[in-house]
Amino acid sequence: MLKRLFATSALLIFVQGFVFAQTATLEKVRNYRMKHEARIINDYKKLLEIPNVASDIPNITKNARYLISEFEKRGAKMEMLTLPGKPEVPPIVFGEIKVPNATRTLIIYVHYDGQPADPKNWTHNPWEPTLYSTSMAEGGKPIDFPKNGESVHPEWRIYGRSASDDKVPFPALLTALDALQESNIALTSNIKFFFEGEEEAGSDYVGEYLKAYKNKLDGDLWVFLDGPKHQSGRPQVVFGVRGVTGMEITVYGPQRPLHSGHYGGWAPVPGQILADLLASMKKPSGEILIKDFNAETAPITSADKKAFATLPDYDAEIRSELGLLNSEFDNRALIESYMYPTLTIKGLSSGNTGPLARNVIPTQAVASIGMRLAKGNDPQKMQDKVEAHIRAQGFHIVREDPDIDTRRKYAKIAKVTRSSGYPAVRTPIDNKWAQQIVQAIDQVTEDEVILYPTFGGSLPLFHFEQIMQKPIIIVPIANHDNNQHAPDENIRIGNIWYGIDIYTSILTMD
Amino acid sequence: MLKRLFATSALLIFVQGFVFAQTATLEKVRNYRMKHEARIINDYKKLLEIPNVASDIPNITKNARYLISEFEKRGAKMEMLTLPGKPEVPPIVFGEIKVPNATRTLIIYVHYDGQPADPKNWTHNPWEPTLYSTSMAEGGKPIDFPKNGESVHPEWRIYGRSASDDKVPFPALLTALDALQESNIALTSNIKFFFEGEEEAGSDYVGEYLKAYKNKLDGDLWVFLDGPKHQSGRPQVVFGVRGVTGMEITVYGPQRPLHSGHYGGWAPVPGQILADLLASMKKPSGEILIKDFNAETAPITSADKKAFATLPDYDAEIRSELGLLNSEFDNRALIESYMYPTLTIKGLSSGNTGPLARNVIPTQAVASIGMRLAKGNDPQKMQDKVEAHIRAQGFHIVREDPDIDTRRKYAKIAKVTRSSGYPAVRTPIDNKWAQQIVQAIDQVTEDEVILYPTFGGSLPLFHFEQIMQKPIIIVPIANHDNNQHAPDENIRIGNIWYGIDIYTSILTMD
Repeated sequence: MLKRLFATSALLIFVQGFVFAQTATLEKVRNYRMKHEARIINDYKKLLEIPNVASDIPNITKNARYLISEFEKRGAKMEMLTLPGKPEVPPIVFGEIKVPNATRTLIIYVHYDGQPADPKNWTHNPWEPTLYSTSMAEGGKPIDFPKNGESVHPEWRIYGRSASDDKVPFPALLTALDALQESNIALTSNIKFFFEGEEEAGSDYVGEYLKAYKNKLDGDLWVFLDGPKHQSGRPQVVFGVRGVTGMEITVYGPQRPLHSGHYGGWAPVPGQILADLLASMKKPSGEILIKDFNAETAPITSADKKAFATLPDYDAEIRSELGLLNSEFDNRALIESYMYPTLTIKGLSSGNTGPLARNVIPTQAVASIGMRLAKGNDPQKMQDKVEAHIRAQGFHIVREDPDIDTRRKYAKIAKVTRSSGYPAVRTPIDNKWAQQIVQAIDQVTEDEVILYPTFGGSLPLFHFEQIMQKPIIIVPIANHDNNQHAPDENIRIGNIWYGIDIYTSILTMD
Repeated sequence: MLKRLFATSALLIFVQGFVFAQTATLEKVRNYRMKHEARIINDYKKLLEIPNVASDIPNITKNARYLISEFEKRGAKMEMLTLPGKPEVPPIVFGEIKVPNATRTLIIYVHYDGQPADPKNWTHNPWEPTLYSTSMAEGGKPIDFPKNGESVHPEWRIYGRSASDDKVPFPALLTALDALQESNIALTSNIKFFFEGEEEAGSDYVGEYLKAYKNKLDGDLWVFLDGPKHQSGRPQVVFGVRGVTGMEITVYGPQRPLHSGHYGGWAPVPGQILADLLASMKKPSGEILIKDFNAETAPITSADKKAFATLPDYDAEIRSELGLLNSEFDNRALIESYMYPTLTIKGLSSGNTGPLARNVIPTQAVASIGMRLAKGNDPQKMQDKVEAHIRAQGFHIVREDPDIDTRRKYAKIAKVTRSSGYPAVRTPIDNKWAQQIVQAIDQVTEDEVILYPTFGGSLPLFHFEQIMQKPIIIVPIANHDNNQHAPDENIRIGNIWYGIDIYTSILTMD
């Protein structure tokens, strides 16, 4: 999940570090952890050894059983949820810890499946976790896993599939539960676990699960434990993701390619028609000229503006790294741009360019348009607005390539092929449940928590918002350079320790 | 030569036919021809049997020797011109017939080389000419070549490489000379022959030949015997061809492809920048918005307008066939559009469209621009005007992909890669030498001669105009459905007879 939702910049290297605020609970949990570090990472090794591609149902089920067993040991009531008649769908691992007198229920989301991995492209087998003295990129060397009781260095890395994405919350959660139990510290919220097994396969059935088990899954806040931390290493909480959709627009010239000599200056040129249409939709400056494009977009609140201010401002460096004098909207802040829907030409094609260019007038020109959606934008409604604009430019809209009679009838024809898509999800920065999480994290970290109102990228979290009607929040712990989705995925040990600290604080917050 | 310079329309089928005006000379020549039809096509078969790809110097030279021998038999003084130190360049076959008291010299151009041909794609070997009862397309069957004295049907076709393009003027010229000699009819012009052997290879050395032999090649009018007649079958004279050039324009976004979520609504989108630039250059209606684009274009004269009126008007049918409601410039006549330069988007590319489209902001967008040039347009000057327009839109123009520092310095960068090119050639319709040819053809044909002020396509005839400083005219005789440049090239016998008639009239005109 969370494929590098925030881009990293090669120019920007920050020291990963934080200093713990001294609370009594944290001190106990850290003491527990320090006594058990080698055992914790050896246990994690066992989980990483179980292959976890969503389509591999026997191994996926093995992962699920392992998790059930481990969480049951910590007193959770665990259950494997399935969809009747669909044995090919990975199960949901559901669990519950009921806390007497707790008035709040947190639903903790993790996904235990991982991206498929081709061992040929990995330094070691993806499901044979290997310990390194530091990252390979920094010259790390393979070392033996420590024996229980031996010391562990926080800069060590475990290489293996899902080491970061997204099995790493498990050792952190299990250790936090162990440490609290040993210290006789009670949890302060009812906890539900929702561990998904098909996130990397597209979460095709998560909506069905949510509908089927809606009552069981009720709670106050969904806490997504997934994704990498901000590249600065600072603690981070993310309140949303953009939605996504798109469309492909094809415009037409003559029915067959024409010799540009015989017909040049006479036959309509589809590339020209397309250029004119696209230029009417958006200015190169970024301004979108489609009527009411932003009408339903949730306004930026003063809480959002305060959140913007928690972010390090790297925009100028990113521009420089990308070779850009300016970014759109007069250098509007990147984080602010995430609050708006986009209209991006992802692709253009007509005839040929380069050595293959021929002296012809092509028959058509195609633009692939991507749209990211902000909170409030309905995918279909946004597509409707673009189509209304195309119509207003004099186009007849079709869904299939037009036949000869249609071509003869309309001067301008556009075939619009809509992509599927889904809306954004964004929890208000000042949502009371979410703010409790922020404060819990803030309490155990020295650096200011980065409040990310929304990622620019998209995840299908709308199922959770639409079906469960509850707020969501994303709490990442992995190192940003974890090679997520790529060969040699890894987790930095110090980031597991960070996870233990903040999960502890969340599990015991007021 | 003359690759289908006028497009054929599958919808438009016309009877090829004409009735000879009865002049005494023509009657004698027709009588001669009718007595020798079988021998004429058997002789032509021999010429077609000699392979004639420009790079095949031994066979090309065999063609040249054959032509020298045949024209010498008719009393021409023949010579093989070569370029010193360049034995790899096909020779020019030069010839001369001096006529006492003649005050006019016609230089007759034919090219004896042909397009390369892959026998695999032909019904018969390209250099084993085969006679058919009518065209293959109309169900013709192979028949034996007739014995001398046997009758010949004008609908027969000879299939073979260069049967139409461009050996067919030879049997017609040789027969006309034979018939006039037998009838004791004198030529009325000094005649020079310029038979090129590398036209289909690009005429790379024709300029060098013209410069090297300029004095020898002096005359009043270059008569190009090449190309297919108008699809209506009516006699036709062509006064020019358009020039051609072009450019490729690349505009830039971020230096590496960016995730459209992380950077959408922030990073400049090259497809949008390109669409805006292209839309600023031309309207879909055809109107070109580049300053002074038409400033040097030769104006349309009243003689041109009279010539337009000689053309059958098929524009509405062509639009219907091509599935177009309108053509550019409010349905301006196709022939009139040839009098102007064009600016045509031949190709567009950026990122991907269709199934390969990805959620990225591409690094660049490219447009391949084709330009056809009208009389008066200098290729470089026209490119300069386009570049001035690009600059006026705020672009910094580069010749190579910009480096990172250049990218950081300019908001909008366009790499412009100019194509080579050459200017148009167009002889004024009322040129006195050209008009003499028109009248000579008109005298022996019943249908009104089509006066084509210029083809829309391009040929490098500028060498002849620029170096020789003499007018040119194109007189085609081949059937329009001759499969020129394609497999199964053919000539309809009746078109050879037509050639004999009009060449006779030209050779004996007042």
